[in-house]
Amino acid sequence: MLIHIQNPPGETLFPITPEQWQAACQRHPDVQDLEARFSNDPEALLPALADAEILVTWTKILHEHLVSQDLTNLAPKLRMVFCTSAGIDRLLPLTWLPPQTSLLNNRGTHAAKAGEFGIMALLMLANHMPHFADQQREGIWKPRFARTLAGRNVTVIGLGSLGGAIAEHARRFGMRVTGVRRGTDPHAACDRIVPQDMLDAVLPESEFLVLACPLTPETHGLMDRRRLTLLPKGAKLFNIGRGPLWDQDALCDLLDSGQLGGAITDVAVPEPLPANHRMWRTPGLFITPHMSADDPITYNDSSLDILMENIRAQRAGRPLPNRIRPDLGY
Amino acid sequence: MLIHIQNPPGETLFPITPEQWQAACQRHPDVQDLEARFSNDPEALLPALADAEILVTWTKILHEHLVSQDLTNLAPKLRMVFCTSAGIDRLLPLTWLPPQTSLLNNRGTHAAKAGEFGIMALLMLANHMPHFADQQREGIWKPRFARTLAGRNVTVIGLGSLGGAIAEHARRFGMRVTGVRRGTDPHAACDRIVPQDMLDAVLPESEFLVLACPLTPETHGLMDRRRLTLLPKGAKLFNIGRGPLWDQDALCDLLDSGQLGGAITDVAVPEPLPANHRMWRTPGLFITPHMSADDPITYNDSSLDILMENIRAQRAGRPLPNRIRPDLGY
Repeated sequence: MLIHIQNPPGETLFPITPEQWQAACQRHPDVQDLEARFSNDPEALLPALADAEILVTWTKILHEHLVSQDLTNLAPKLRMVFCTSAGIDRLLPLTWLPPQTSLLNNRGTHAAKAGEFGIMALLMLANHMPHFADQQREGIWKPRFARTLAGRNVTVIGLGSLGGAIAEHARRFGMRVTGVRRGTDPHAACDRIVPQDMLDAVLPESEFLVLACPLTPETHGLMDRRRLTLLPKGAKLFNIGRGPLWDQDALCDLLDSGQLGGAITDVAVPEPLPANHRMWRTPGLFITPHMSADDPITYNDSSLDILMENIRAQRAGRPLPNRIRPDLGY
Repeated sequence: MLIHIQNPPGETLFPITPEQWQAACQRHPDVQDLEARFSNDPEALLPALADAEILVTWTKILHEHLVSQDLTNLAPKLRMVFCTSAGIDRLLPLTWLPPQTSLLNNRGTHAAKAGEFGIMALLMLANHMPHFADQQREGIWKPRFARTLAGRNVTVIGLGSLGGAIAEHARRFGMRVTGVRRGTDPHAACDRIVPQDMLDAVLPESEFLVLACPLTPETHGLMDRRRLTLLPKGAKLFNIGRGPLWDQDALCDLLDSGQLGGAITDVAVPEPLPANHRMWRTPGLFITPHMSADDPITYNDSSLDILMENIRAQRAGRPLPNRIRPDLGY
């Protein structure tokens, strides 16, 4: 089985190395007959697809080089495209994907890192850290006291590996966790599950709100101005999903007016956020540059473990656990 | 038993109210024969000591009105002074305290709140949050990736209720916890205990360092410039104790040079920190205004529970659990 690993040029932290690949093969000795090829030359990508059965690469590379191509002819043997990121919204709609080829993301890789970042964000919001960062800019020493998390309401939109891991931490700190997802499947870390079309009903009691869902046509603009104003006064938000999940301008307006009590975001529109953007200077808004979920020490090993598990599933005729459903977009 | 509760004038969040006192009496029905008197007039303090057996008040009030007085004559019946704060370093040395009177602090009240703040601080340091706050001032979007806490070394100096609670959280996140204390008593959350006079030996392997000990003549300047330079390059520090525990100028120098990897402090010299102080603008230093350990919702209830437990111990002839030892100063 021929696997083509296409790394991006000019990156140092996250490209998959032959050593990491060898180590993955040794961790999964039951997955036999694999041959891996490596390239970081964008020109090498399309020719490599002539015989590759699995392509391992970045969303960015797929977006720039593949979604405009006729893969049915270019990649006759290709059965899996494994994306080493979780969010594949830039690749939607998946009309470029031949029916015999599955697109996989690496969901699962980010859980431990994102979970820790998420509980950090909730604790930072509870402790007014975005406001203290604002006060530090001005050299103002002015205490503002804070309660512990126990017994307080957090609503987590999206219970994939990111939102699920954050919900677990929140639960461990004694929070009352409401999970919002497409269906009504229960989740071990949630006190209750609310389907997405009932979101409006839970917002007024959501002191903390976490956005951890994928960006799809259904979730684009989900937290628009109207829904942001349904939150209780002083509500605190954390966005680990994607910038377009909320109305950034409405968020800034509601922080400016003091209606919202603080926000932390790891995502923005656009990324990178230009230096003169109002987000940088909105009071009570703390910005991190899209780094919350990626642990460079474990990232590639974990991604390759996930790939192996999907190869194992394919060979056994089981559904691929990381397959993106073209109809849902995640 | 006559209890005089002297609140400070002009405070709104933390004074003990008659309602809170009544609720405490109802929670502890076995502690009988208590009569409480309330005042927030500083002039009323000394006359009230003529017949009071227990004084409940703030460190600040003791410092301003009592430590210069001859209590043996002024307060003939006084057996306990209960301070509604944990750090009583401003009252040292305790030469003003008559031998028949015990000084108590409220250690225990802060554990839950301080523990949450402590694990937040460790996660913030691991995730470079002080640096992202710096970048936000300049409008710079520049990712810097981070690992999870599991398996990393944290050294916690001081294992009282603050340090102990932080150690417990750190352990739960999989960190390797070294506790530093005066003796060698084990602590459930610590992988090992090192006595304070062996501190130098563990600093070179302390990627994270937490200062959570009381300020006494022994700990004043404990983390001086020499010890700060014993930490590994990129080490991260959190001070929830007192500003004079470390050399602030050395800390700023070592952050300026990049030798240290970041710091969060809830304490400073002086407090409040003046607007032009270099600490506000030292790169990688995040400052909070002495609010980490005080949860206004639970603070007084918890303090009064601790007072009741000490009255119970006194009546039973047991050692008072919250008594400050005049020889140790904590």
